[in-house]
Amino acid sequence: MKHLIEKFYKRNTIFTGRAVGFRVDEVVLPNGKHATREYMDHPGAVAVIPFVDKDTIIMVRQYRHPVGRVTLEVPAGKLDKGEKPMACVKRELQEETGYRAAEIIKLNSFWPTPAFANEVIHIYSATNLVPAKQNPDEDEFIDTVKVKYAQALKMVKNGKIKDSKTVIAILWHACFQNNK
Amino acid sequence: MKHLIEKFYKRNTIFTGRAVGFRVDEVVLPNGKHATREYMDHPGAVAVIPFVDKDTIIMVRQYRHPVGRVTLEVPAGKLDKGEKPMACVKRELQEETGYRAAEIIKLNSFWPTPAFANEVIHIYSATNLVPAKQNPDEDEFIDTVKVKYAQALKMVKNGKIKDSKTVIAILWHACFQNNK
Repeated sequence: MKHLIEKFYKRNTIFTGRAVGFRVDEVVLPNGKHATREYMDHPGAVAVIPFVDKDTIIMVRQYRHPVGRVTLEVPAGKLDKGEKPMACVKRELQEETGYRAAEIIKLNSFWPTPAFANEVIHIYSATNLVPAKQNPDEDEFIDTVKVKYAQALKMVKNGKIKDSKTVIAILWHACFQNNK
Repeated sequence: MKHLIEKFYKRNTIFTGRAVGFRVDEVVLPNGKHATREYMDHPGAVAVIPFVDKDTIIMVRQYRHPVGRVTLEVPAGKLDKGEKPMACVKRELQEETGYRAAEIIKLNSFWPTPAFANEVIHIYSATNLVPAKQNPDEDEFIDTVKVKYAQALKMVKNGKIKDSKTVIAILWHACFQNNK
């Protein structure tokens, strides 16, 4: 693969924010020329598809400023500094849905946009849910809703659900888990 | 949904790059407090899963600096200014694979990371491929490879394929197209 690999030459941090940052690194191309790579620096995140029963999942509605829409997504959240993904998924599940899960299984890890961000999202499924205290973040405005899995799959197909981690979690279940 | 919606207050453009930009907008939360939203400004993109026969797809290997890896992805590319997605997918298909397609069908549009980017990716499938002149971008280093669809689906499942648009294109086909 050597003929494809770019060598890191110089970091150029444009912005370091509260949640994410932005860099324009300089790299050396396989042909020796220099080029720049503009991308977002992100701490990584987790997402979880929680099943309250075998046909019903818990989702969240929230406003996403970059796309200017209220979205329907699976519960998710950024990793805190030094936080392990499994600890994060338990925390976010309880904060956003008011449930703990007796069983949490890793489905996959994916890159939302590997050309323009270093973000990795780890997706889990959660079953055997037990009610617990809901602790939403202050200044986070979300609605928690129960949705039939079959309905969510239909909303992926007809484009009503557009968020990558949610699309992947729902399709993953249909492909690899549903008929186990 | 009014109780969820943030109002736009002020744009703050941190960086305008060659390919993407970065903004820290100020918004008004549903409770009247002000908050900032850090996100990447992206022109949008297309991706295409091209079938050379019913069992075989064309993919590209390339180095992605943000994640520091050579990835295996479906052909894709950013929209040029004012470019329609269908024109872009035809252009990128020919540039990256050396094929034109007699049939191109829209599968879906999705947001890779709606909390941190306004990027939309439109996914298509292409069939009835006809060889044409390959025109790779200058200074773009990619390998074009033919992969059995069943093998690609396995690589999604075992985590060897991690790119969101590629994962979605492959799972979409398994869920909605394969057994039509």
